[in-house]
Amino acid sequence: MEIVFVGAGRVATHLAKALYAGGHRITAVYSRTITSAEALAGEVHATPSNRIDALPEKADVFILSVKDSVLKDVISELRKGREQQVFLHTAGSIPMSVFGEHQHCGVFYPMQTFSKEKAVDFSRVHIFIEGRDAGTLDLARKVAETLSANVHELNSSERRYLHLAAVFACNFANHCYALSAQILEAHGLPFESMLPLIRETAEKVETVHPREAQTGPAARRDENVMDAQKALLTDNPQMQQIYDIMSKSIIETLNSND
Amino acid sequence: MEIVFVGAGRVATHLAKALYAGGHRITAVYSRTITSAEALAGEVHATPSNRIDALPEKADVFILSVKDSVLKDVISELRKGREQQVFLHTAGSIPMSVFGEHQHCGVFYPMQTFSKEKAVDFSRVHIFIEGRDAGTLDLARKVAETLSANVHELNSSERRYLHLAAVFACNFANHCYALSAQILEAHGLPFESMLPLIRETAEKVETVHPREAQTGPAARRDENVMDAQKALLTDNPQMQQIYDIMSKSIIETLNSND
Repeated sequence: MEIVFVGAGRVATHLAKALYAGGHRITAVYSRTITSAEALAGEVHATPSNRIDALPEKADVFILSVKDSVLKDVISELRKGREQQVFLHTAGSIPMSVFGEHQHCGVFYPMQTFSKEKAVDFSRVHIFIEGRDAGTLDLARKVAETLSANVHELNSSERRYLHLAAVFACNFANHCYALSAQILEAHGLPFESMLPLIRETAEKVETVHPREAQTGPAARRDENVMDAQKALLTDNPQMQQIYDIMSKSIIETLNSND
Repeated sequence: MEIVFVGAGRVATHLAKALYAGGHRITAVYSRTITSAEALAGEVHATPSNRIDALPEKADVFILSVKDSVLKDVISELRKGREQQVFLHTAGSIPMSVFGEHQHCGVFYPMQTFSKEKAVDFSRVHIFIEGRDAGTLDLARKVAETLSANVHELNSSERRYLHLAAVFACNFANHCYALSAQILEAHGLPFESMLPLIRETAEKVETVHPREAQTGPAARRDENVMDAQKALLTDNPQMQQIYDIMSKSIIETLNSND
């Protein structure tokens, strides 16, 4: 397929490279900054551009991976002369309605967090697609199936919950690591010592449901340890509050499942 | 070395098997339940027992891996006739003072979470040791170095913070997965779709500090998305409270680092 990428950030970069490697032709890459456009375009043998009006008029699909806040404006500019083209955006938290009156539109949401440096193995990534019309949905599915066998159709309303779940599984879990690092650093202890623990905890839920995998003082209802640990956080009321509510939530989750 | 294991739970099992594989001789395994003692003893060619008074009088070291709540009682029983023996416990949250007047005592705390089924690669695990006397500390170090190159001396007072940090990095992170699963299950969405995300998030902090690795609506200070996501949790005030305080904490952590 001939694909134009609108955006050259982390999602666009990983996706464009994976689709290029999967045999698609990336004809052009747009970014507000020409150096960003050039960086990605160079990797996928595309034409870079920092002007939307200079992009090709036609492609099999235009994939929009730009900041949530500018998506609407980018769509309205991109539409000019491309009213009949197929547009897909990749934003988990933005409903398909952002496309307004554009006809052939849809969503292509890969459930992954993308780092600058680290390559992504899309074959395991679940991709959630949506299309306003059957043709767009079909095209989104074809593109997604180039990358992964885990392709699901999901409407914008349900995708909000998927995105919320991802915030817990990724952003909040990562913040737990950050709080752990903060405690360790305050006592000159090595954060590296947590890495095998963090990896094991993450790998465990590949075979055991997280409710079953739960360990620790709250899971054991060990009030002595919980009180002692809360006392260590006296100087940090907010972290103490997090300790409290997470412990309470663990206990209630396990109780409701007993 | 000749080692007696007091306890045959998850920590004892993983540790005994790793030390056996590392060339040590496990002479006996105690568990309150003879079938548990037999299960582990069978794997390391030791003598099983469900009576502490029937354990060998001597060994190079007695490793105590029993529930926190019974550790004190087990020590007092084990001491009878073994006042000059070397005892190490493996509990992160229990200070060395639990050994009372016992002389050759210390702590051997491997920073890992242990599953029933899954083998542990101790070579990456950080082990934190403590000893009341130089001989015990030296022995604990020798045993630890059989398994890992990451051996640290740490006193009981500082170990409380290490254990607290582990609760955040492991128990609370896992609870974030459980809350994610709860959201997904309520909407018929597959928790499996989170697994590549969870793994990537865990792997990322092996090369990037968790503060730098933070992504998501709170990290972007995206009030629109945060408000919309909080609204999805109206039916679950506790989860909403967790969403709120975690987002607030992410923002403050990043602000304090700006």
